[in-house]
Amino acid sequence: MVQVHFEKLKLVPVGYVKTSDSETVIELLPDFTEAAEGLQEGDWIKLILWFHRSDTPGRRKVVKVHPHGDPESPIRGVFATRSPHRPNPVALYTVRIHDIEGSRLYVDRIDAIAGTPVIDIKIFAKRYDCPEETR
Amino acid sequence: MVQVHFEKLKLVPVGYVKTSDSETVIELLPDFTEAAEGLQEGDWIKLILWFHRSDTPGRRKVVKVHPHGDPESPIRGVFATRSPHRPNPVALYTVRIHDIEGSRLYVDRIDAIAGTPVIDIKIFAKRYDCPEETR
Repeated sequence: MVQVHFEKLKLVPVGYVKTSDSETVIELLPDFTEAAEGLQEGDWIKLILWFHRSDTPGRRKVVKVHPHGDPESPIRGVFATRSPHRPNPVALYTVRIHDIEGSRLYVDRIDAIAGTPVIDIKIFAKRYDCPEETR
Repeated sequence: MVQVHFEKLKLVPVGYVKTSDSETVIELLPDFTEAAEGLQEGDWIKLILWFHRSDTPGRRKVVKVHPHGDPESPIRGVFATRSPHRPNPVALYTVRIHDIEGSRLYVDRIDAIAGTPVIDIKIFAKRYDCPEETR
């Protein structure tokens, strides 16, 4: 294989999840607020989060799980699931923007808890994000 | 906002892209090969990569770009684009698995260069990955 050694893959939070009862709010950090220019109410976005509650040495070592935590469900590798327990606790959501106020994006309610770091936002694009047969 | 300070978001490569002329091969590192158990030929997956060539202080500071590098295209925030220049050079692909041989996944050809770190693989699920109106 092509073996490359990296000093470090340095991940920085660009914002944090701030939940409320009825909706999810993404609060961008000041350095990154300008990066959201062009996003509009009604846009669908890919939201890439860091599940910090799953960021423990034990949970990151989990390579197999019962999907959906259901013991009846046959155990399988975490890459074949959407489990939060994985080598890098990266979570991927597809949500719609309801409103934007300065550094705050109001989006569809998701199950991420308040304080969850946001590591990236990308505009949704069907040609990149959905397999051809679903088009 | 809910302000949380993290020591570090520690990202580790789980494998690397190995390209060939006609296809893209993902080579998983030995510690993570078992995490792919349950994935099968024909499955669609989300492939999350680290664009190490964009991992320079200058490129990570870019918050606005001309989409597709086209100077005719009005400049906008990187979160409203799929540009590789972004605060965290995370790339997201949707590819189909053609074949699996041990720690190697043969997938649809993508534009990631050999040596690109893989940070996560998730099974594609329409309910998570595609907005409702495209279903």
